[in-house]
Amino acid sequence: MLLTGTVVVDSATVIDEGAVVVDGTTIETVGERDELLDRYPDHERRDFDIVAPGLVGSHIHSVQSLGRGIADDTELLDWLFDHILPMEGSMGADEMRTAATLGYLELIESGTTTCIDHLSVSHADQAFEAAGEVGIRALMGKVLMDQASPEPLEEDTEEALAESEELIRQYHGAFGDRVRYAVTPRFAVTCSEECLRGARELADRYDGVRIHTHASENLGEIETVETETGMRNVHWLDEVGLTGEDVVLAHCVHTDETERDVLAETGTHVTHCPSSNMKLASGVAPVLDYLDRGINVALGNDGPPCNNTLDPFTEMRQASLLQKVSQLESTALPAATAFEMATVNGAEAAGFEQLGKLKPGWKADVIGLRTDTSRATPVHDVLSHLVFATHGDDVAFTMVDGEVLLDDGEVVGVDVEAVREQAQTYAEQYS
Amino acid sequence: MLLTGTVVVDSATVIDEGAVVVDGTTIETVGERDELLDRYPDHERRDFDIVAPGLVGSHIHSVQSLGRGIADDTELLDWLFDHILPMEGSMGADEMRTAATLGYLELIESGTTTCIDHLSVSHADQAFEAAGEVGIRALMGKVLMDQASPEPLEEDTEEALAESEELIRQYHGAFGDRVRYAVTPRFAVTCSEECLRGARELADRYDGVRIHTHASENLGEIETVETETGMRNVHWLDEVGLTGEDVVLAHCVHTDETERDVLAETGTHVTHCPSSNMKLASGVAPVLDYLDRGINVALGNDGPPCNNTLDPFTEMRQASLLQKVSQLESTALPAATAFEMATVNGAEAAGFEQLGKLKPGWKADVIGLRTDTSRATPVHDVLSHLVFATHGDDVAFTMVDGEVLLDDGEVVGVDVEAVREQAQTYAEQYS
Repeated sequence: MLLTGTVVVDSATVIDEGAVVVDGTTIETVGERDELLDRYPDHERRDFDIVAPGLVGSHIHSVQSLGRGIADDTELLDWLFDHILPMEGSMGADEMRTAATLGYLELIESGTTTCIDHLSVSHADQAFEAAGEVGIRALMGKVLMDQASPEPLEEDTEEALAESEELIRQYHGAFGDRVRYAVTPRFAVTCSEECLRGARELADRYDGVRIHTHASENLGEIETVETETGMRNVHWLDEVGLTGEDVVLAHCVHTDETERDVLAETGTHVTHCPSSNMKLASGVAPVLDYLDRGINVALGNDGPPCNNTLDPFTEMRQASLLQKVSQLESTALPAATAFEMATVNGAEAAGFEQLGKLKPGWKADVIGLRTDTSRATPVHDVLSHLVFATHGDDVAFTMVDGEVLLDDGEVVGVDVEAVREQAQTYAEQYS
Repeated sequence: MLLTGTVVVDSATVIDEGAVVVDGTTIETVGERDELLDRYPDHERRDFDIVAPGLVGSHIHSVQSLGRGIADDTELLDWLFDHILPMEGSMGADEMRTAATLGYLELIESGTTTCIDHLSVSHADQAFEAAGEVGIRALMGKVLMDQASPEPLEEDTEEALAESEELIRQYHGAFGDRVRYAVTPRFAVTCSEECLRGARELADRYDGVRIHTHASENLGEIETVETETGMRNVHWLDEVGLTGEDVVLAHCVHTDETERDVLAETGTHVTHCPSSNMKLASGVAPVLDYLDRGINVALGNDGPPCNNTLDPFTEMRQASLLQKVSQLESTALPAATAFEMATVNGAEAAGFEQLGKLKPGWKADVIGLRTDTSRATPVHDVLSHLVFATHGDDVAFTMVDGEVLLDDGEVVGVDVEAVREQAQTYAEQYS
């Protein structure tokens, strides 16, 4: 297939009248449109205004999709314990499948081709199947909670780890290696030391399996961990093995200098979720400091109940705007950096190789945008335009691993209407 | 015309299966869908998921639309003096007409039915004509700059005020009273005392003419004013007559207690522009304190070069999220308040009576939204959904004064393609 448009190869390279040629699951070549049209006259063709690498949502809760808007404007602890966890705890296999499918549909419809997905305690297999059906690339895992958790969610430590291992055997590397496994403790507060150390041991037993958890999102959380362990949260995670190049920590809003040193020294990945941090009043993560230290910072939308969108363009824009206003510096976190966070940095966090740029030999995860709207006119700088002016509705085409998942704005191979109707019906039981 | 859907009457009242009946330029009745369908069987009908009051953009720069993306990620003073003001200064009548038209198109396409528009020094008549052509409701005026301004923009005080008066005679109350005049000094830094006092005198001579200016947006501005006048900015504006129930001050990010007292005592309106304040690193306006004091706070997108969208839903969401994170309080500025800021508070600032709610006898400024998308599924609370999940692309229908401006997502009566092409061509001269 041959895709034409202004081609954003990466944050530093744009081809004004370019084209991308895809062969199988990878990009064959990228270059000038006219030259490639001459060279590949028989290739099936799609024309766009902008062609870009698929975006990476590096901290997502697809299975919370039925709770979009369930608890807006509420106190954080009420939000979690009165709304979100009860919803997760009450969801059966069908609800989980519908929620995950809806989440993946929203992601591919708005330009996310890879996600790092934090599932729930039960029915994680439903989300793996949904990812396989929709075709998204994902690093994902069943959630571990073995202490201080509401009744239906708290599990026996050994059983939870054993179920995780079953899922690894079944799904790690599944669907043409589009789906990989991350052992996923919810956060230190709801996981015993045995659980956290067990997560590390389990991840180490399987090549390519990673670890994904929440860390230092809010002040109450880090106080609880410090009270129980005598350590700051990141030090505790480091102590039990949950730092390193295969670990993704979502949020990291509240860290001190010594914790940042640990993150940098261990090569731990951080996912910044600006809209969620704003809506839940968590605070402003020290993203610029992390980047200065060489820490890999990716971007995530978090879940629909705390955002309330999975649009990755909204998050790029928000990441830049939030750093500018909090630093009182209008040059802070420019478009190129936001774009890197949402592409190559996300790919690095997720552990997928040759992903996040439109380069020959790299994975054919590509999006095509149409920007023939008043709100996207005029275009001065296309990279800046992607970050500050366009959004998910401009995405007309989404390809993962060379497979077209969204074509001319329509999802391929999934009955989207049926999923939406089912989601609305299921959602009416939550409040 | 009869519009059906979940009807958001105002921030406190929602009719789940409702309808709005429009007669001429006003709303005739609002109620249950089935009852109104029985009562008005022959009315032309439109069906939506949500029917809501048209939104009010209370601080807009439509004529900066050609500069969308012109100077992202730059220092504030470079942004203004190296990019925005030179662009405005170089624009001829045709560029001004195209820019304003593009701005009004973007506004009506994304659900804004009324704007308070800050034009430029020259060719203001072109924007008035554009507003008349597109059909938007607007309070707007030529900009006054008579000191400390770049060459092509600085004008003789008397001549500038005389031209303003000409425009008042020509356009105040024009287009069926959809368009009204606001005398528009740019800000205290670029306006002499004579100019500011002249603005007040001019506004007082014409019934319904208001005053619109920028105030206390950034620290450099208020330092300059204090150095030159010996007063804090709002005190200076009060001294020269630029406070009161007919005055709209955009931004008010940096005010002290005594200035807030003045704003409250004089009934001066404040327009909050959260995305702009974030992108230009201006700071976080004390919106909650203003509201606590009874100050009327409206919402605005500011201009495309500092946002980069005129989508009013983005601004409602941003207003809520920015207060939550800056106050570290997730209940701060809830959806209902954001919605009031973008509707009735904006109408009050603009001075249009019976505007901003869907009530019998009120102005027929109405929008219809379709939300049959993955990203807008499910819906729990419709008001909260409007603020946190929907955006301008969901707007399928826009009516101002009973006239349909956008129908089934298509602008009525304007060659939108031609405007966009012209805008892109003109825009290429700016950088």
